[in-house]
Amino acid sequence: MTRLPVHNMAVSLDGFATGEGRTLEAPFGHAGGRLMEWFFPTRTFVTTSGHESEARGAGTTGVDDAFAAASWQGIGAEIMGRGKFGPQTGPWEDETWRGWWGEEPPFHTPVAVLTHQERADLAVGETTFLFRDLQPVDALALATQVAGGQDVRLGGGPSVVREFLQADLVDVLRVVAVPILLGRGVRLWDGLEGLEERFDVEATASPSGVVHYVMTRKPRD
Amino acid sequence: MTRLPVHNMAVSLDGFATGEGRTLEAPFGHAGGRLMEWFFPTRTFVTTSGHESEARGAGTTGVDDAFAAASWQGIGAEIMGRGKFGPQTGPWEDETWRGWWGEEPPFHTPVAVLTHQERADLAVGETTFLFRDLQPVDALALATQVAGGQDVRLGGGPSVVREFLQADLVDVLRVVAVPILLGRGVRLWDGLEGLEERFDVEATASPSGVVHYVMTRKPRD
Repeated sequence: MTRLPVHNMAVSLDGFATGEGRTLEAPFGHAGGRLMEWFFPTRTFVTTSGHESEARGAGTTGVDDAFAAASWQGIGAEIMGRGKFGPQTGPWEDETWRGWWGEEPPFHTPVAVLTHQERADLAVGETTFLFRDLQPVDALALATQVAGGQDVRLGGGPSVVREFLQADLVDVLRVVAVPILLGRGVRLWDGLEGLEERFDVEATASPSGVVHYVMTRKPRD
Repeated sequence: MTRLPVHNMAVSLDGFATGEGRTLEAPFGHAGGRLMEWFFPTRTFVTTSGHESEARGAGTTGVDDAFAAASWQGIGAEIMGRGKFGPQTGPWEDETWRGWWGEEPPFHTPVAVLTHQERADLAVGETTFLFRDLQPVDALALATQVAGGQDVRLGGGPSVVREFLQADLVDVLRVVAVPILLGRGVRLWDGLEGLEERFDVEATASPSGVVHYVMTRKPRD
């Protein structure tokens, strides 16, 4: 059965999953790369980011890498918000934008991009982006249909994750708490009072300083 | 040299250190006892809460108890906000209120209660409450003076801790992250962007489900 996991959603200690002032040059706003510093040294990142040849055998293989690697296992499709696909808002004025990831994005699956603005499907390397104006439950139905029996990754950003949590569609929520205080940006946890009643929660502290939370949906009646 | 530690300030995953709607019956508002459930089973709590005779030998002695016990070691005075002392606000209309703790409060030291409203010093058991209208730096000076060379515990609530952090007076900040989402109440982390630059941070996950953060002030130049 297809599940809907969220993998490695990084949040600051004060709950922000992205910073303020997002632009083409600063996709995470004033947060910069600080929410992902635990990730960059991992073997998973090093070997999937195009630096493989210069870093063969490199990369950490501890708990951070275990969580990083799990993000790519058994995934047949992704759902993401438009903000993760690119910095534009409003009508698609610049269709030359093909995502942040170059000509071979790391997904290698269909990716549903949630947007109110129509745009034709877009194949980039082995990834196909499907731009759709859908509610969470319908987006999940579409992604499940194209996932070939595998899981659907809910890829963020934070507002999209929050909507799917509010609709009670998320099966596994993996959050990485990063010990920094961003002070401003987009909060992950707003409007989710009592969420823990529906989830079992496990926390693992990493030597890198982050804490990996795994929230697993309790069996539905 | 006297240091100013904050011990075991519990916050929800969404950053609230106390709930909404605080009253005499519900000192933590709608949070109830949920922020302190990690603490109640510890040996430290069991043996200092007046239940010793019925629970001799009882209480957990793991990492939660280690942090609980540390809260009482080497402390010569406490600073607290008025909200921690009692539920009243405005002028002291009811001076029969002598705190939440009965006739032998657990402090056994002078306790500076920060309030704009004048009130005479109050001895209860071995504890003396000093009601003072002071800025953080002056409150620390007073508490240091009466602490007999020992440390001064900054006892909360969250707004008071925040003020002392903003004034850069806190030497050690021990926060307990509790995996619940309160959704509303008083946030600990507001207005503290970049705090981590001044502190070394360490995180320890407890089998109880909470995470103990210890933030230690870096050496001041």
